[in-house]
Amino acid sequence: MQIGIVGLGRMGGNIARRLMRDGHECVVYDRSAETVQGLAGEGAVPAESLDGLVTALQGPRTVWIMLPAGAITEQTIADVAARLAPGDTIIDGGNTYYKDDIRRAAALREKQIDYIDVGTSGGVWGLERGYCMMIGGPAEVVDRLDPIFRSLAPGAGDIPRTPKRESLDARAEQGYIHAGPAGSGHFVKMVHNGIEYGLMQAYAEGFEILERKSSTELPENERFDLNVADIAEVWRRGSVVSSWLLDLSAAALADNGTLSEYSGRVADSGEGRWTVEAAIEQAVAAPVLSSALYARFRSRQDNTFGERLLSAMRFAFGGHIEIPGHSQPPKAE
Amino acid sequence: MQIGIVGLGRMGGNIARRLMRDGHECVVYDRSAETVQGLAGEGAVPAESLDGLVTALQGPRTVWIMLPAGAITEQTIADVAARLAPGDTIIDGGNTYYKDDIRRAAALREKQIDYIDVGTSGGVWGLERGYCMMIGGPAEVVDRLDPIFRSLAPGAGDIPRTPKRESLDARAEQGYIHAGPAGSGHFVKMVHNGIEYGLMQAYAEGFEILERKSSTELPENERFDLNVADIAEVWRRGSVVSSWLLDLSAAALADNGTLSEYSGRVADSGEGRWTVEAAIEQAVAAPVLSSALYARFRSRQDNTFGERLLSAMRFAFGGHIEIPGHSQPPKAE
Amino acid sequence: MQIGIVGLGRMGGNIARRLMRDGHECVVYDRSAETVQGLAGEGAVPAESLDGLVTALQGPRTVWIMLPAGAITEQTIADVAARLAPGDTIIDGGNTYYKDDIRRAAALREKQIDYIDVGTSGGVWGLERGYCMMIGGPAEVVDRLDPIFRSLAPGAGDIPRTPKRESLDARAEQGYIHAGPAGSGHFVKMVHNGIEYGLMQAYAEGFEILERKSSTELPENERFDLNVADIAEVWRRGSVVSSWLLDLSAAALADNGTLSEYSGRVADSGEGRWTVEAAIEQAVAAPVLSSALYARFRSRQDNTFGERLLSAMRFAFGGHIEIPGHSQPPKAE
Amino acid sequence: MQIGIVGLGRMGGNIARRLMRDGHECVVYDRSAETVQGLAGEGAVPAESLDGLVTALQGPRTVWIMLPAGAITEQTIADVAARLAPGDTIIDGGNTYYKDDIRRAAALREKQIDYIDVGTSGGVWGLERGYCMMIGGPAEVVDRLDPIFRSLAPGAGDIPRTPKRESLDARAEQGYIHAGPAGSGHFVKMVHNGIEYGLMQAYAEGFEILERKSSTELPENERFDLNVADIAEVWRRGSVVSSWLLDLSAAALADNGTLSEYSGRVADSGEGRWTVEAAIEQAVAAPVLSSALYARFRSRQDNTFGERLLSAMRFAFGGHIEIPGHSQPPKAE
Repeated sequence: MQIGIVGLGRMGGNIARRLMRDGHECVVYDRSAETVQGLAGEGAVPAESLDGLVTALQGPRTVWIMLPAGAITEQTIADVAARLAPGDTIIDGGNTYYKDDIRRAAALREKQIDYIDVGTSGGVWGLERGYCMMIGGPAEVVDRLDPIFRSLAPGAGDIPRTPKRESLDARAEQGYIHAGPAGSGHFVKMVHNGIEYGLMQAYAEGFEILERKSSTELPENERFDLNVADIAEVWRRGSVVSSWLLDLSAAALADNGTLSEYSGRVADSGEGRWTVEAAIEQAVAAPVLSSALYARFRSRQDNTFGERLLSAMRFAFGGHIEIPGHSQPPKAE
Repeated sequence: MQIGIVGLGRMGGNIARRLMRDGHECVVYDRSAETVQGLAGEGAVPAESLDGLVTALQGPRTVWIMLPAGAITEQTIADVAARLAPGDTIIDGGNTYYKDDIRRAAALREKQIDYIDVGTSGGVWGLERGYCMMIGGPAEVVDRLDPIFRSLAPGAGDIPRTPKRESLDARAEQGYIHAGPAGSGHFVKMVHNGIEYGLMQAYAEGFEILERKSSTELPENERFDLNVADIAEVWRRGSVVSSWLLDLSAAALADNGTLSEYSGRVADSGEGRWTVEAAIEQAVAAPVLSSALYARFRSRQDNTFGERLLSAMRFAFGGHIEIPGHSQPPKAE
Repeated sequence: MQIGIVGLGRMGGNIARRLMRDGHECVVYDRSAETVQGLAGEGAVPAESLDGLVTALQGPRTVWIMLPAGAITEQTIADVAARLAPGDTIIDGGNTYYKDDIRRAAALREKQIDYIDVGTSGGVWGLERGYCMMIGGPAEVVDRLDPIFRSLAPGAGDIPRTPKRESLDARAEQGYIHAGPAGSGHFVKMVHNGIEYGLMQAYAEGFEILERKSSTELPENERFDLNVADIAEVWRRGSVVSSWLLDLSAAALADNGTLSEYSGRVADSGEGRWTVEAAIEQAVAAPVLSSALYARFRSRQDNTFGERLLSAMRFAFGGHIEIPGHSQPPKAE
Repeated sequence: MQIGIVGLGRMGGNIARRLMRDGHECVVYDRSAETVQGLAGEGAVPAESLDGLVTALQGPRTVWIMLPAGAITEQTIADVAARLAPGDTIIDGGNTYYKDDIRRAAALREKQIDYIDVGTSGGVWGLERGYCMMIGGPAEVVDRLDPIFRSLAPGAGDIPRTPKRESLDARAEQGYIHAGPAGSGHFVKMVHNGIEYGLMQAYAEGFEILERKSSTELPENERFDLNVADIAEVWRRGSVVSSWLLDLSAAALADNGTLSEYSGRVADSGEGRWTVEAAIEQAVAAPVLSSALYARFRSRQDNTFGERLLSAMRFAFGGHIEIPGHSQPPKAE
């Protein structure tokens, strides 16, 4: 199929490449002309502007927007929509907040433009492994664009088949699903990222317990000198905690068991926050997903106002002076 | 009554003073001879050694140990017990782990020495306001020593009486209770401190939200410039969050609304840890008490191994480079 | 002063009463004519409709809306505003989401109507003890209405004065503050309620640990038979966990130490949720306030889908069959 | 090699089978004679008693104990040790608390008996896939028994090799490690299980958010009707949350998307508790691992004393009556 792609960063560029490998025609645009030329060298049809991109596409057109969620995506969708005709389709493949999708889809529907939200997981590995996609929007449009999604998806590969799936939607086994109406794709992707935070934090806490078991703050006879790189590796084999994130951890630890090249100030994307907000809206207790988010917040700060208030209360009540040590409880309250 | 007191620090010295004010005779010992002489100048009978202290007491003797929980208390109790006779009593007024009380009481019982554990709350305010006491040990001993406890306790004061307490134990309204057998006094005090952690952290989080509402990391039209000192003060009046800890917070914030004199590296005593362990032993979900403890752990550290592992995983999966900013989510995952 | 009051429920009725006690003239309206007549019998000027209420007030008029937050308050404010004139003032004394305040204030400003948001704490105790108020809106309006706020507030009473407050805003010591512009009053009240959740959950966890210490699920030699009513009472005296919430707990436990008249399915108001959302917007770690909210969510449910998924995973991995017991870990994974 | 195996349950029996497949000689004993005979039919040397088992082994003997952690393992180790000679070895392959290992190893060392603790992961899948093993004890003994461990381990299989592991311990890639001295094997396995809890709870929360998105408690225009079975399946393909636990979840959901055959009352083994206790001993913040544990505690209970206390406080302060609904916040506080 023919498709326009706007935004050729780490994700957008590789999406174009993976589609071209499978014979699709990609008309590409990026604000960096250099990036556009680079992809043109790999076989894409270059566009110098949104006008150019839209002109190069035959109707009904499909334009995949792959930009950072937020104002730039919002504006670009408006700019593209202004150039499209009834029957055309806009795909937002970024990490948009699902309520924005619902709003946009309704607005575009008035112009008879279809809107598809695609939650896209795959990171820097997607080009080779394929992208896991969660798709929201009208079923008939999702069906029509199936060749695009099938090419981007990982396919069944050699992952063992889940029993009793014979009668269920076969697309899931290829690595993509039609989740439901507008917004549902990004909603599922949002929860996916929320889970990701929780999984990552579970490993982080566990490995910290292992690493600290050799701390000189512990009495000598309570220490073990554990090799965290070997532990991560062995858990990849036959253990119930094996996962892709563990594979990545094992690789990082094999490279440098102290991880000293990282500061540990961990960014968070909007999706972790939105997942917790969704949990609260639905009255679902989500302590693990919240804790994982908060650990990231705290990791990016020095001591907080709240912590200083704790010190102030302790001093006021018990005359406790702050002391620098870490592990050992210094004094009873 | 006559009582021996070993350990004349912030707590022990004031306990002696409060008892002497009420006419009790205090024989006092501390490893600092100077401290002993100071209290002698206030009317106490000074002892130069444990031998001297025990000799100065008439049987049945009562010796109140008021030392930091742990090895020093353990050793001192052994040293005192070696000098006592059947029918004498040892009181541990510190923050001992309740399982240590149970063990010690059993060992001393073989020597016919009674053991009383007293969880003592009051901080630097106890001398004037009195000490809230939770007492474990044999009922007949607790009853015999009632004059001591009554003098140390705050008394009913002008605190409004709780309805329907007429038929319940009157000692609670005076500020002390006989909680049960050996260890139960410190168990109740342990949980008391666990709750204290939770209360403190609730205020800390709330005030941090208020303080951060003026952060320049927020868009300008989302900020309020709130006066946290006034807020703490107003909540002392008619609000359901009024408490002693809030009084102390209000005083600290009135003094310096930025709390800049504190680092926010917050110590924890053993009791917060033991409370969580007790919850786990009893299969009680204690997320607030645990979170409060963990916030203290984290406050005393720089970025952790676990946080570095999060960064490593993010880099491995998505090519995410760490960035220094705090509040704003920089990029989708 | 003269004031109109719309909504005469538990809070609104008592606000009218407290104002009348202090000599203010209250023109009152409620959709229940009976309620209006009841307050008329206590000295209020009854109104049969919003028209009647507005007509009975002299300009510049002040109308205090005291209704459940949400649609009914929104509509009533619109209805009242349609009847007011430039220079008049609407007060929302309910638990409105502060972003709604900001929006409304801007809309009313176009009509030259002032909007004041008052976070009001005091519960069923406010009539006698006074209401703690956090006020948002234009300073000159708040100043003009000071007689109203001063009458509603608890006043300094016999609560000890916080040191070093001499140079700070004296209103806080009377029990009310001008927090800042529109929305700030409800923002502060929102955080207040968030803290309240945290405090309550800290006590809940602590008392559950105490209560479960006598559980027959524990080995007999690990049990204590603790009297939770006495423990709550004794902590009111000289202990650092003393608070109004503890007073209320002590009263409930003195009445019935088993609390068997309660189901423990605990409602939550919007404000606890909004506080967590505000924390997330500001990237503040709020584990205690979140945990307190989640405990309420969970308390209102039977076993959840998430819990069933845990069981399913355990069965799939280890062949573990669900068993009913609670405390004891039955089997290793 | 020749090895004795005591305890032929789900784990012990399959360990014997996997060893026999690789040509090892297994002398087996279980308190069920029938079970012993069953394995004899598969080629094992049956023993009718511990005496018989020890007699059937040539020195230096190795006896693998595979029983539930706790009293029965403790007693069996004592019983076996009483029958062994200097130079023999006892392996505890269960989920023993690592501090018990340290104590036992020291006691057995006095008899010149070696003690090896093996944390064994693999569940019901271990017979086919192999067991992931974390081994503590003297290096020379672990080395001598290497043929046993190599046979039990999964081997490298077709799992992609972690880069930069060339110079690291090759055993980890086969699925077993020598973690360190006595207790370290079970310590690592303990943390492994703690992480497992956290991972499971992350999925549980995420899927609950997805499942509740279709709840009729939400306004109709906020609902999605999501297919959780398809979502679990699609995440197995190219997504960063792919893992073995997700595979198991996908299978359970493909079988029955409502999971109605499970009650959701989730047991916990000692290891989750010990992991949190270890975190606390080491002053490591472990909010995710703790939350996961607490979710299990709560899942096995009806409404708690703590929750009833929350209701009691709300009633005392605000006159709030408990109401049954779940999702919607009914009233402001």
